[in-house]
Amino acid sequence: MSLTNASPEQAARAAKLSSRTLATLPVSARNAALDAIHDALAAAKDDILAANTKDLELAKKSAASGELSLSILKRLDLSRKGKFDDMLQGIKNVLDLEDPVGRVDLRTELDDGLVLQRQTCPIGVLLIIFEARPEVIANIASLAIKSANAAILKGGKESTESFKAISTVISKALAGTEVPNDSIQLVTTRDAVDPLLELSQYIDLVIPRGSNELVRHCQRKAHMPVLGHADGLCNLYIHSDADKDMAVDVVVDSKTEYPAACNALETLLVHEDVLESILPAVAEALIAKDVALRCDERSKAALIKHLSRDKASLLHDATDADYTTEFLDLILAIRTISTTPDNANSAVDAAIDHVNTHGSHHTDAIITASKSVADRYCNGIDSACKFWNCSTRFCDGMRFGFGTEVGISTNKVHARGPVGLEGLMIHEYRLSGSGQGAAMYGSGGKQFKHKKLPLV
Amino acid sequence: MSLTNASPEQAARAAKLSSRTLATLPVSARNAALDAIHDALAAAKDDILAANTKDLELAKKSAASGELSLSILKRLDLSRKGKFDDMLQGIKNVLDLEDPVGRVDLRTELDDGLVLQRQTCPIGVLLIIFEARPEVIANIASLAIKSANAAILKGGKESTESFKAISTVISKALAGTEVPNDSIQLVTTRDAVDPLLELSQYIDLVIPRGSNELVRHCQRKAHMPVLGHADGLCNLYIHSDADKDMAVDVVVDSKTEYPAACNALETLLVHEDVLESILPAVAEALIAKDVALRCDERSKAALIKHLSRDKASLLHDATDADYTTEFLDLILAIRTISTTPDNANSAVDAAIDHVNTHGSHHTDAIITASKSVADRYCNGIDSACKFWNCSTRFCDGMRFGFGTEVGISTNKVHARGPVGLEGLMIHEYRLSGSGQGAAMYGSGGKQFKHKKLPLV
Repeated sequence: MSLTNASPEQAARAAKLSSRTLATLPVSARNAALDAIHDALAAAKDDILAANTKDLELAKKSAASGELSLSILKRLDLSRKGKFDDMLQGIKNVLDLEDPVGRVDLRTELDDGLVLQRQTCPIGVLLIIFEARPEVIANIASLAIKSANAAILKGGKESTESFKAISTVISKALAGTEVPNDSIQLVTTRDAVDPLLELSQYIDLVIPRGSNELVRHCQRKAHMPVLGHADGLCNLYIHSDADKDMAVDVVVDSKTEYPAACNALETLLVHEDVLESILPAVAEALIAKDVALRCDERSKAALIKHLSRDKASLLHDATDADYTTEFLDLILAIRTISTTPDNANSAVDAAIDHVNTHGSHHTDAIITASKSVADRYCNGIDSACKFWNCSTRFCDGMRFGFGTEVGISTNKVHARGPVGLEGLMIHEYRLSGSGQGAAMYGSGGKQFKHKKLPLV
Repeated sequence: MSLTNASPEQAARAAKLSSRTLATLPVSARNAALDAIHDALAAAKDDILAANTKDLELAKKSAASGELSLSILKRLDLSRKGKFDDMLQGIKNVLDLEDPVGRVDLRTELDDGLVLQRQTCPIGVLLIIFEARPEVIANIASLAIKSANAAILKGGKESTESFKAISTVISKALAGTEVPNDSIQLVTTRDAVDPLLELSQYIDLVIPRGSNELVRHCQRKAHMPVLGHADGLCNLYIHSDADKDMAVDVVVDSKTEYPAACNALETLLVHEDVLESILPAVAEALIAKDVALRCDERSKAALIKHLSRDKASLLHDATDADYTTEFLDLILAIRTISTTPDNANSAVDAAIDHVNTHGSHHTDAIITASKSVADRYCNGIDSACKFWNCSTRFCDGMRFGFGTEVGISTNKVHARGPVGLEGLMIHEYRLSGSGQGAAMYGSGGKQFKHKKLPLV
């Protein structure tokens, strides 16, 4: 890794050049580099924490004057219990993942002695833009090296000293390995983001990890593809046949397990038939966890009937805007879903319509005892993740068993949902022949065999 | 299909709405729609050809005044022998392809009664922009319906009458099927492209099929991903151990089988050891096919020595710009590749370097008797398609056995190389549980099983 004061263009060109060397290294060389980074970071713990303390001191001043939020301050702190060790363990976890490069997923004999093969290969150069958390730099460097991609990293200014310390250590560690130093570059220049977003000749993919504003900015400005989700507006629909205890458990987990996460629940849809039988228990459990409820008229009326006066007094009226707001906080919007007489599917169809028009196509769930209702809901909604009878919080690369994730994508191309190493790969086609030309084939000539071959 | 005079926003919103219905239709309903379109177009052949004649008459006037190229005029003509039948057969071919929707490629038991499944689904709404060829509209409508994607089609103005006639027929045919009419919309409004490229809330992917200028314009302006290749600057390297006859056959096919195609050869790299043994035979064969050769100093000197005086007089000096020019014509740039003493890999590495810095990462080939040299070349170059001992012209969806193609992508994400139906799909995750919450798992709680299940 080089800590670069080079111009964005110089950094990007150097990354592109080294990416071709990195792409040809065997997995043993890439894993050896991860081992070297792990050991060097472990040995330099004191220096890194000292640098982190400098960032923290500045940040505390900004927080005291109200310029910085306390949650950013918390994320900055590398000395919190277990955080440094988690960073080191993260590198080992990536090291242990299967090699994602060179996996053959198609082999076809086009004709005698003319064999086509499709195999995975790295994308090339990634631009990864992230905000405060300093440990992310080690995590991302590991993912990039494992996947044989070069990466340009641009971190938030609050973590500058931590980033510099970590990148100096990584740089020294890489110097003793086969991974080219320019493969991972930390750009610290201010205002480097916009020029980098225009360098599509060198940079193949942008991955913004941070606020919705950052993601949207990249989507508007980038000349290359952007992988990321701007919003996580997750919905959950309680159907008329839902189990009450399950509804309580799943809604409470979806809303409160980590309210600031993109996969936390933001809007609860409730079938009119269970407004008085299930919703009050759900509301009691949420209020006990300090969740503020913003209700439509019918759900509020039902709750007022069944909740104690002091709890009912905590209810708010929902506005239209509440159903399109990602609260990222202990606030939940509630809306009643009605059935049209003589149309058994009308309620689930109304829920589908709400999710498709108000949600962000991230993760949406249903609680129902009926498989056919769940299927209708899951087929109808246009979401990356469609969950039946379980919490929206399961939408996560670790929980899905991907080992690690670079983020959760609401893109409709390339990668969607939790993105692991697979999302950092693309494929190439290799065709080996024995002198064939295309003019030999076609009407009057030879015919293609197109015989599927076993993968090797 | 509706032939719409609606605003770009109205058309896009209608496409988005209908895309959710289309996404839930079984393959039988989508195939029935393709059958209906096929039969209706066959029945309306005379009307369509009459409309095409109007386009042709206007185009002939433009061609006569030099405003339109003769090649566009040729592509416009639907009455050319076999063209209408090929269009009809193309619909049948798409109909016969396997259903690309709902293919399960991952199943994991996260825990007892908590099963994750990944399956293919349509992308949503495609914006397909194309130029003169009128039959493309039927081809693309078929691909969109088969893949359960809605599509907004914007055709070149030269084919307006043909497009209107075809889309009217398709619209009537779809009216009798389950495929919503708004799923396929033809936009004829002038200047609709730029507004459409900003509607990322409705349109998920842009596929420009046409000139490099059109593709670059979309890449710069679109707020959503763009699938396409701007350039096809293909290289072929003749190594020192190449077979002479094979080199002649493969180079001639790559350059002359269809010089205007993106997969045609544009630059020939020749090892210095075979400048006098192989290159003269290659040059003779190319000159016999009217190919103009633009040579560097050493290759020109070698050819002057071995060609007859009248043929040698046809050689041109190459400029630097020739090695970055996609001629799309009977012109070939030639460059000598040298070996550094005591470095056996230096020549192939120099060829790799030329390809990576001058090419367009589309299709690049090598002629060599050595598997290890071919592997070094293919590993080193950053190309969608890497060919050994065969023509660059094989880079094609039909020839690869994909049945059809929507184009050839030089993108580094989503789809790369010839893109078939697969490139019009993305995946979704479905998780079914029995009331699980995420808070149950983790330190002190339950552990995930992450057990791989067989695909069903």
